[in-house]
Amino acid sequence: MVSEFYKEMTGKESVIRQFFDFARARAAEKGPDSVFNFSIGNPSVPTTDSFTQALIDIVKEGDPVKLHGYSPTLGQDSTKKAIADSLNRRFGMNYTAAHIFPTSGAAGALSHAIRCVAGKGEVVLTFAPFFPEYNPYVSGTGATLKVVPADYDTFQINFEKFEEMCDEKVAAVLINSPNNPSGIVYTTETIEKLASILTKKQEEFGHEIFLITDEPYREIVFEGVDSPFPSKFYDNSICCYSFSKSLSLPGERIGYMAVNPAAKDADLLVPMAGQISRFTGHNCPTALMQFAIERVIDETSDLSIYEKNANLLYEALTKIGYKVVKPMGTFYMMPRVPSENGDANEWCWKAARELGLITVPGDSFQCPGHFRISYCVPTEMIEKAIPLFEQAYKF
Amino acid sequence: MVSEFYKEMTGKESVIRQFFDFARARAAEKGPDSVFNFSIGNPSVPTTDSFTQALIDIVKEGDPVKLHGYSPTLGQDSTKKAIADSLNRRFGMNYTAAHIFPTSGAAGALSHAIRCVAGKGEVVLTFAPFFPEYNPYVSGTGATLKVVPADYDTFQINFEKFEEMCDEKVAAVLINSPNNPSGIVYTTETIEKLASILTKKQEEFGHEIFLITDEPYREIVFEGVDSPFPSKFYDNSICCYSFSKSLSLPGERIGYMAVNPAAKDADLLVPMAGQISRFTGHNCPTALMQFAIERVIDETSDLSIYEKNANLLYEALTKIGYKVVKPMGTFYMMPRVPSENGDANEWCWKAARELGLITVPGDSFQCPGHFRISYCVPTEMIEKAIPLFEQAYKF
Repeated sequence: MVSEFYKEMTGKESVIRQFFDFARARAAEKGPDSVFNFSIGNPSVPTTDSFTQALIDIVKEGDPVKLHGYSPTLGQDSTKKAIADSLNRRFGMNYTAAHIFPTSGAAGALSHAIRCVAGKGEVVLTFAPFFPEYNPYVSGTGATLKVVPADYDTFQINFEKFEEMCDEKVAAVLINSPNNPSGIVYTTETIEKLASILTKKQEEFGHEIFLITDEPYREIVFEGVDSPFPSKFYDNSICCYSFSKSLSLPGERIGYMAVNPAAKDADLLVPMAGQISRFTGHNCPTALMQFAIERVIDETSDLSIYEKNANLLYEALTKIGYKVVKPMGTFYMMPRVPSENGDANEWCWKAARELGLITVPGDSFQCPGHFRISYCVPTEMIEKAIPLFEQAYKF
Repeated sequence: MVSEFYKEMTGKESVIRQFFDFARARAAEKGPDSVFNFSIGNPSVPTTDSFTQALIDIVKEGDPVKLHGYSPTLGQDSTKKAIADSLNRRFGMNYTAAHIFPTSGAAGALSHAIRCVAGKGEVVLTFAPFFPEYNPYVSGTGATLKVVPADYDTFQINFEKFEEMCDEKVAAVLINSPNNPSGIVYTTETIEKLASILTKKQEEFGHEIFLITDEPYREIVFEGVDSPFPSKFYDNSICCYSFSKSLSLPGERIGYMAVNPAAKDADLLVPMAGQISRFTGHNCPTALMQFAIERVIDETSDLSIYEKNANLLYEALTKIGYKVVKPMGTFYMMPRVPSENGDANEWCWKAARELGLITVPGDSFQCPGHFRISYCVPTEMIEKAIPLFEQAYKF
């Protein structure tokens, strides 16, 4: 019979989606110049020419039967090796192809990683502010997601609350750095402290606690920012990555899960992910994207516009009076709502309706009193929007 | 903690995989001519030139930011419309774009469709012989798969057993026609009788029973064979399709779910599938494959070799003395094991080890005493293998 669980859900649009739809409707009604859409995180720069050329070359040169044939369940060997080598070269790790599981973007990587190490009755901890899709990713496994409240001054980890909440039911801790929605990057100090607490808790509870690191924004880190590779600091770790942001390919669903070779059951986790795919119907990413990524493994799109936009916006907003934790990477920032009562939902709707200034309230990210700006937009749009942020400051 | 459920599974290779691996090892040891590998269903003909050209054109012409950007959660509108129009044109249906959900192949389509209409405590019925991956697809939803025994004389439906087993816990019935592994196609008579029983059972139980139709072999039907479109005969139906076989693209993970516009909650099922994706981390198929498929929607590869192979093999095997239900489509057939005791596993291993003749025992498909031949191979290989089938007949 038709599932009541999923049926009920269809009526409930996400808040991000509501703002996005409002933006589209307003643009249709009043013209595109009436809308300043800072609501979504779709990369605004093109992929590289060499990626485009790689696609064309592969399609032209390859034997179509081999090229478009089934990938091995655990991914194309050559792609897995290219990913492992790149991570080893860049971060001093010692992955082999056997530790890499190509996935359909970070969503696929996270869903597999969580299923590998958490299940019914167990808890996955994450940190506010956080990407709201973590909720279904975790609940789909039967585990429960619990959220450590934000450290609003820095958006680093609120360690006091974390230590309180990290009890023996915790099977995995999920971090996202560089962070959507705050734009901050966890410092080496933060990662070291997190690793040390996890190590202590593992001993205390007598079972492993996995660190799952969601890293689609890894390549978007601003000048001079310390950006440690978390798996370097903690053995029981699984790195989840997507090429969506670094190569501007979100629609092509290509990413991977990389299992730390020093983790418990390190050699089993990728074969386990292969089994998990059978239950979710997920299977491999496309053969074509696996082969193409392999050819441009260390490349990124020209990501410089995001830092330029970050600086422009951060300076303008702080000058107006907004309280903003300075972004260190990504294409997001998370200022405090200026209004008296600090109701972000109210403030964001007012800015949207009166000024066409579309941002997203922080409540969705479990960060009330704040709003997210996605600045993966043309710099010109930011310049034009600054006077509107000035007006909205007085709401 | 590391999941015991998936961990245990990693040790257990599927029987098909064991035979496939044996074939590879023997080829490496004794040379490729010592192996006649009829164990897997990977298309052996290339995709069409126009599909290849479509890929190149799209990559060359498209704005890369738009082309590779996120697809809408429910799929690219133009792709959905092209699929709906094609089905309407070919089968006299009245799908709209809103009834189509593009998926990562048939695996994705089935996993979403089953989750839409079956859950914990409910039963999904299917018919032997059947594709063994239905087991995880169904158990991943929390429902239970039950298998109606085969009608060994025709491989059509064993209606007596079906009526016995179709009790009020049955939420969905899953059929695969043209069928892997038997190669038969359900006749109009079979589909009409199935629809009529389901209609009666729905009334009796007071709840809907969905018919989920797994149709990746739809375009591989041999001359003169009656091949009805099952959704035409029953309202509560969801058609699951993949372009893997028709366009020889199994590695590119592109297919769809098509909800019968006359089904209960027809307008809700695709949005529900979008919600389901959030829990499995599945998301859309790639943007590129969606756009490419749209341009060649009614095309197929040159599939004629499969019929040629089927005829050659069927005639030779029956002449030798094998009992075979004549295949009507696909690139499979399912002869009876000739040996006295009828143990297919024993017979298949003997043929593999002594003759390098690699087939798959029917036990995996819940069809003991039979073996599957995948004849998506060069015709020459079949010609050379016939004397071996003759020897194996005498085992």
